[in-house]
Amino acid sequence: MPLRVSTVEFRVRYAETDQMGVVYHANYLIWCEIGRTDHIRTMGTPYRDIEKQGITLAVSEAAMRFHASARYDDLIRVETTLTSVTSRTLVFDYVVKNAESGERLATVSTTLISLDPDGRVTAMPAELRAKLSSVASDAA
Amino acid sequence: MPLRVSTVEFRVRYAETDQMGVVYHANYLIWCEIGRTDHIRTMGTPYRDIEKQGITLAVSEAAMRFHASARYDDLIRVETTLTSVTSRTLVFDYVVKNAESGERLATVSTTLISLDPDGRVTAMPAELRAKLSSVASDAA
Amino acid sequence: MPLRVSTVEFRVRYAETDQMGVVYHANYLIWCEIGRTDHIRTMGTPYRDIEKQGITLAVSEAAMRFHASARYDDLIRVETTLTSVTSRTLVFDYVVKNAESGERLATVSTTLISLDPDGRVTAMPAELRAKLSSVASDAA
Amino acid sequence: MPLRVSTVEFRVRYAETDQMGVVYHANYLIWCEIGRTDHIRTMGTPYRDIEKQGITLAVSEAAMRFHASARYDDLIRVETTLTSVTSRTLVFDYVVKNAESGERLATVSTTLISLDPDGRVTAMPAELRAKLSSVASDAA
Repeated sequence: MPLRVSTVEFRVRYAETDQMGVVYHANYLIWCEIGRTDHIRTMGTPYRDIEKQGITLAVSEAAMRFHASARYDDLIRVETTLTSVTSRTLVFDYVVKNAESGERLATVSTTLISLDPDGRVTAMPAELRAKLSSVASDAA
Repeated sequence: MPLRVSTVEFRVRYAETDQMGVVYHANYLIWCEIGRTDHIRTMGTPYRDIEKQGITLAVSEAAMRFHASARYDDLIRVETTLTSVTSRTLVFDYVVKNAESGERLATVSTTLISLDPDGRVTAMPAELRAKLSSVASDAA
Repeated sequence: MPLRVSTVEFRVRYAETDQMGVVYHANYLIWCEIGRTDHIRTMGTPYRDIEKQGITLAVSEAAMRFHASARYDDLIRVETTLTSVTSRTLVFDYVVKNAESGERLATVSTTLISLDPDGRVTAMPAELRAKLSSVASDAA
Repeated sequence: MPLRVSTVEFRVRYAETDQMGVVYHANYLIWCEIGRTDHIRTMGTPYRDIEKQGITLAVSEAAMRFHASARYDDLIRVETTLTSVTSRTLVFDYVVKNAESGERLATVSTTLISLDPDGRVTAMPAELRAKLSSVASDAA
């Protein structure tokens, strides 16, 4: 059985800081995408192979709450779970932490919708949906 | 009386697109910051002068909803309003549009908190709060 | 006759600063692309229309020299010239300045190569090359 | 004896791609900074500790040559060497490769200058220079 929480770690890049001396907030969405890519990989089909099948998963909603700051060279951990799978949508939740102190930096949730090559909302193929459900925390 | 809605326009940069051929979603937070900077400027004190006074306004929450895609070289318009001012927090709302078609691309809301030079939450100086209230849609 | 130098202005975004309090150096390449887009537009065919014809112009070389720093909210001016046009390559030169003080911040040169849809180097269509030559400082 | 070449690996982020379907060229400068941070760490003093001593190392020149494209989710390897150390400058060279195929994607060289807290060029402290020389390929 695949893991239901994926954990990925990396260090803060200098380019990600701003003049406040901390990580600029938009970068957390990029970090969540790293967690999401990693979590999808655990189901056995990397996201890039999904796109080759003509399905793109686009972010349609995001909610972010920031608790503490990340700084240059900090080791960051993103814990990702897939909390909802429907025929056209996926909801991923993320906790972003300082990997060394364990401090929680941000909690994020994103909703993704399934699009066809023309950018129209479309149902995911049954096989893909089944695979995604297999790594969901609460499979629909 | 200052305008209560600020409008700023710019073109999509190539660097902002991704391999889907549309703008990567995290860039909308950067665009909202452009709108916010512009809106704060209308109250008579640019944001960089606020930071020189030892107050930083950090994003503590963000909620984003995506309606349509932006593409390279599209002319983008961000309409920004300041919808809430308390002693320690500000809420800005944004509508991101395609400036040529008028199509709504995203609606975003961000909450900012006032921090002192040590990164602790602090009340904004009365004068700053009064100025911000003067450009708020619904001054507290 | 089209202008041989294009000038574009914009303000530094908060996201473009780093913890040194100045603009992170990689952003200058993005700024040069804004200047390049603008310069290509003056020849009458926007770059996005060139891509629709199946030609992409990819950066193959870049040389950058930094003279002074840019800071948040500074008004930046990029002056772009097209200094060389061959069947397969273009060389653009850029001077990045602080628009208010006139101070020179960076000088950059980029070489672009013409690629077909499969990513292979290809000669530019004669018509495109002629148009580009018309806005070059020293038409080949 | 410390290693004279540092090697760091990471995967291409979706945000780093552009509408050509490949990595946007400015990101290679960010990747080189990851290699540089890693290489400096091998000398025993992380870069963030250098900044705490009041010295910042700012990029003053960069030269980049692109050989092949990187794509989303590719595993990237950056090999970094420090090829010159003077009292005020450092030259780092980088080879960016596809870690799985071994294909060379880009070769980059950056010159860094030592700045004091006011942004003026300054000689590096002797101890710092000695440490940097110890990880240089060709110590001055």
